Amino acid sequence: MSFKRIAIVGSGAIGSCYGAYLQDAGNDVHFLMRSDLEAVKQRGLRLKSPKRELELPEVQAYASTEEIGPVDLVVIAIKATANEVLKDIIPPLLHDDTVLLTMQNGLGNEAFLAEHFGRERVIGCLCFTCMNRIEPGVLVNSFPGYIAPGEMDGPVSERLKALGALFENAGVKVKLTENLKEERWKKLIWNVPFNGLAIAAGGINCEQILASEGLTLEVMGLMKDVQRGARANGVDIEDAFLEKNLEVTYPMGPYEPSSVIDYNADRPVEVEAIWGEAVRQSLAAGESVPRLELLYHLLKVLAKS
Amino acid sequence: MSFKRIAIVGSGAIGSCYGAYLQDAGNDVHFLMRSDLEAVKQRGLRLKSPKRELELPEVQAYASTEEIGPVDLVVIAIKATANEVLKDIIPPLLHDDTVLLTMQNGLGNEAFLAEHFGRERVIGCLCFTCMNRIEPGVLVNSFPGYIAPGEMDGPVSERLKALGALFENAGVKVKLTENLKEERWKKLIWNVPFNGLAIAAGGINCEQILASEGLTLEVMGLMKDVQRGARANGVDIEDAFLEKNLEVTYPMGPYEPSSVIDYNADRPVEVEAIWGEAVRQSLAAGESVPRLELLYHLLKVLAKS
Repeated sequence: MSFKRIAIVGSGAIGSCYGAYLQDAGNDVHFLMRSDLEAVKQRGLRLKSPKRELELPEVQAYASTEEIGPVDLVVIAIKATANEVLKDIIPPLLHDDTVLLTMQNGLGNEAFLAEHFGRERVIGCLCFTCMNRIEPGVLVNSFPGYIAPGEMDGPVSERLKALGALFENAGVKVKLTENLKEERWKKLIWNVPFNGLAIAAGGINCEQILASEGLTLEVMGLMKDVQRGARANGVDIEDAFLEKNLEVTYPMGPYEPSSVIDYNADRPVEVEAIWGEAVRQSLAAGESVPRLELLYHLLKVLAKS
Repeated sequence: MSFKRIAIVGSGAIGSCYGAYLQDAGNDVHFLMRSDLEAVKQRGLRLKSPKRELELPEVQAYASTEEIGPVDLVVIAIKATANEVLKDIIPPLLHDDTVLLTMQNGLGNEAFLAEHFGRERVIGCLCFTCMNRIEPGVLVNSFPGYIAPGEMDGPVSERLKALGALFENAGVKVKLTENLKEERWKKLIWNVPFNGLAIAAGGINCEQILASEGLTLEVMGLMKDVQRGARANGVDIEDAFLEKNLEVTYPMGPYEPSSVIDYNADRPVEVEAIWGEAVRQSLAAGESVPRLELLYHLLKVLAKS
């Protein structure tokens, strides 16, 4: 399988950065854009990372997927809060073998795509990276990190290897995963407490969370809720993984989790994908997760969705 | 036992209203005041309730307890957040038999007074009423309700009866309680969820809490945490009491719990007396109360104390 024509849906930091890397490596990349469209048409994309600087003066940017037409790979990097629009945006991009790669946060995005466009099309992907969009078309990838794509139902397939090669050829570090579900739950071990408490405690950062003895206890309590919810869903996460996730946060200093950046800027927060689905899947598996439930219900009222 | 000289410590709504009732009934009442001192010295106290209107042009108001001197009864109605100042304020009011009556919210206030001034002096008192201080010296008691005083260690004593008679003679409805601890925990069944969620969900009112299906679930979840914490401390509260506490809140409409009024006005909130002590006493009795713990730790960061 080869991915000759590629569409990027979502021109935030993640979509624009990975799209830029793919285009720079010689791929035929088409960007669906909204607010950044005119700026990118005129000036292209610029990306700075610790390793390199990209200048892409010519970028194929569009206002609709009808203009793009069928592609081999759709990289989906819109917020999960906007998933409903995918029902209209995706169809013009599809041919029989089009692959949908979701780089979105949280749980339930693969299932949403599978329900509407067919399970066989969908590949999930976690992004362990730090990317920011400084202004329209100007990107910084301060921590390159890696991506972890995986099939919905398990083992590494030929097309997953091809997808990995595509990104590796574009200079992106790739770790193919055999257990996407486990990776998704493991990422929640950090995202649930730190993104959540940062909002619920008034829009604060990681340093401020960890400066509070009480909130640090709640970080651990929430991690244990996620651990129990994951276990009830067949994903075993060790205590050592929880402790490591806490430890690595101390050196981050006043780092603001992405959800609290959105919250403080009055933008929608992925409450359902991160907290809501974790609660629902835990309860559906018969596991009560009281701290996670309370946090979810507070966030639902506090944050835009 | 008779209470001839009475001091009121704390000139917020509760202290000023009950002090005014007691003075109007002919008692010798001395008010310790701070911000309202000059206004009350000049214009006295005015109080409006559904049943009557009081005009007390002459009020004995003071800036220090040294000026008041020893009394038979001290009515303590400052915020629990300011308890530390009592260590200096109370001693000048004491003779050998002075009774300390705390009308403060939450758990731990009787214990604080007992520790510093002797257990034998202390009587606790719950106030089921709605009182507001409109401006210095001007009070509204929109819902008269009743008070429930009780000895720290159980049965109704002679002095408790005398205290009850004192307030009844002043037109205040009194229900003497044989189980102060039970009354304190029962009041938390409402105060913990509604005061707490109103703050943690962004400074909202009861109607807004109950408009959210998720927060309504959390109200019940928090009530059950308090119920379990109470049970571990020897206080049995029936499920029907929880349900009744939820039901009576619907007709309250957009009622703002007192803590959220303080929170929205950037004043200190009794976080330790209401949530902190409930958590500590539950954990000390071996009962985990995860929702209550998370709420407490959030409030500790969100609210001034």
